[in-house]
Amino acid sequence: MEELRIFAPATVANLSCGFDVLGACLDNVGDQMLLRKNDLNQIRITKITGQELPFETDKNVAGVAVKALLEKLGTNQGFDIEIHKKIKAGSGIGSSAASSAGAVFAVNKLMGQPFTLKELIPFAMEGERLASGNAHADNVAPALLGGFCLVKSYQPLEILKLPCPPELRVVVLHPLIEVKTKDSRALIKLNVSLQKAVSQWGNLGAFVSALYTEDYGLLGRSLKDEIIEPVRSILIPFFDDLKEIAIKNGALGFGISGSGPSVYAMCKGQKSAEKVKEAMQLFYQEKGIDFDLHLSKINTDGIKIL
Amino acid sequence: MEELRIFAPATVANLSCGFDVLGACLDNVGDQMLLRKNDLNQIRITKITGQELPFETDKNVAGVAVKALLEKLGTNQGFDIEIHKKIKAGSGIGSSAASSAGAVFAVNKLMGQPFTLKELIPFAMEGERLASGNAHADNVAPALLGGFCLVKSYQPLEILKLPCPPELRVVVLHPLIEVKTKDSRALIKLNVSLQKAVSQWGNLGAFVSALYTEDYGLLGRSLKDEIIEPVRSILIPFFDDLKEIAIKNGALGFGISGSGPSVYAMCKGQKSAEKVKEAMQLFYQEKGIDFDLHLSKINTDGIKIL
Repeated sequence: MEELRIFAPATVANLSCGFDVLGACLDNVGDQMLLRKNDLNQIRITKITGQELPFETDKNVAGVAVKALLEKLGTNQGFDIEIHKKIKAGSGIGSSAASSAGAVFAVNKLMGQPFTLKELIPFAMEGERLASGNAHADNVAPALLGGFCLVKSYQPLEILKLPCPPELRVVVLHPLIEVKTKDSRALIKLNVSLQKAVSQWGNLGAFVSALYTEDYGLLGRSLKDEIIEPVRSILIPFFDDLKEIAIKNGALGFGISGSGPSVYAMCKGQKSAEKVKEAMQLFYQEKGIDFDLHLSKINTDGIKIL
Repeated sequence: MEELRIFAPATVANLSCGFDVLGACLDNVGDQMLLRKNDLNQIRITKITGQELPFETDKNVAGVAVKALLEKLGTNQGFDIEIHKKIKAGSGIGSSAASSAGAVFAVNKLMGQPFTLKELIPFAMEGERLASGNAHADNVAPALLGGFCLVKSYQPLEILKLPCPPELRVVVLHPLIEVKTKDSRALIKLNVSLQKAVSQWGNLGAFVSALYTEDYGLLGRSLKDEIIEPVRSILIPFFDDLKEIAIKNGALGFGISGSGPSVYAMCKGQKSAEKVKEAMQLFYQEKGIDFDLHLSKINTDGIKIL
């Protein structure tokens, strides 16, 4: 196998109660990438469509992720990387993670699968480090493994894939304003009150339980965030109104996707999700703000070979 | 039914990764109580053995818990309460919770079960408020419901009963020094670093997952606490040595039970637990510190009628 074309999915990280530890993989939102072996002993970004991104290997998240992987393998094998972006940079649905994860997935396949999917996560995290200054795993893990992922710990890195209740749907609204992950992280305080932390870990525990028991009501009640959302939501136009509209129209829960500005509404069933989607769309159209809008299942497979 | 004799179990709260939200019910450690209707329209503590505790209804945790229940029912029915303590006050294995939970459980039975077990929790929490100034639920919930309980949220109060992997055993060592919950709480800082909080909720999520998947290894790796344990453990003689000994002898995890000074070792299987128990016993005997030592299954039933 000399080349591979893949779908690299968007992801929703944090999911309100799981800052830096939870993420979910989307099904019909993502990039395409084409990776091809070359005989030049070089990692080259040969084509980028859909976005303006750096072609220099060391400045491109896919480039650094692949480099980390190949260095670990101790090989000089070269690769050409084509990136066809559909996920906008700075959208908050794992644009950099899709590129990093997609690239290491494809290279691993083309090298005869020396690594398991879980073993690929640290390489993809190097892309995240480049993108945001922080090698977080809550986007790259669900992009690679699919479904819901929990970062049990960073040191040592341990990732769990959690079960996925089948009727879940996610509506993602991306207001077309850019929020850099770096800037959004800068808003967050380094200390939190113990009381709010207790509240957060109670909700996270309940969320994990709800995934196992397929208790959609509990799942919705667990999607709370008293720590990050109050700070980050100020960067998102009409966040509180959107939340109210989503919940009023039947969403189980609503919050910021990753570091924003995208927001997500978790819904039970396709019909309910469509209703929530329409209501959010109508509201933002009235406000005259440009946006992208997606409705997706949870993608339990992760990256797909095309 | 005019009277009821019950077993009111000891409980291990916090379980390292779940400060204020997690607790487990023990099987063979607990008090006995006898509750009997009287015709005096009064709640009386008529007998206490094993400990010196207040006989005034309003100063006794069982008294205030029963009072809260009967007030809610709007009845003048009187009760005589006998408390035969085996769990030492200030031990950190839910002594006050056993009395509060046991009392409301028995009164509810004798009144024809107007409340579900979950509905009894807030009444029992009034006993905790009296005992420690804080109406926490992580002891009374597992005492009433059995097994592992998660306090999903305090406002509104929502408690989940989690599954219990069958081979779990708990070794509890109680150094015979008294630590008041109030004093132990006073050590805790009101703010925690976000980084440590993230680490804590990653572990709690993994712990909940491990209960569902019966993954004993993961369960052990999740029993971590970087927030409370470093502060509270200074009150417990030779805490770090005990921990090292327990882990070296095969314990899955080790930490402080509740607010201490009791410590717990979570083990897989009876044999492993016996080995851990012996090693801890030997070490504390050498140090010349008095202690109580228990080895218990997780009690999935909670309070038992005798």
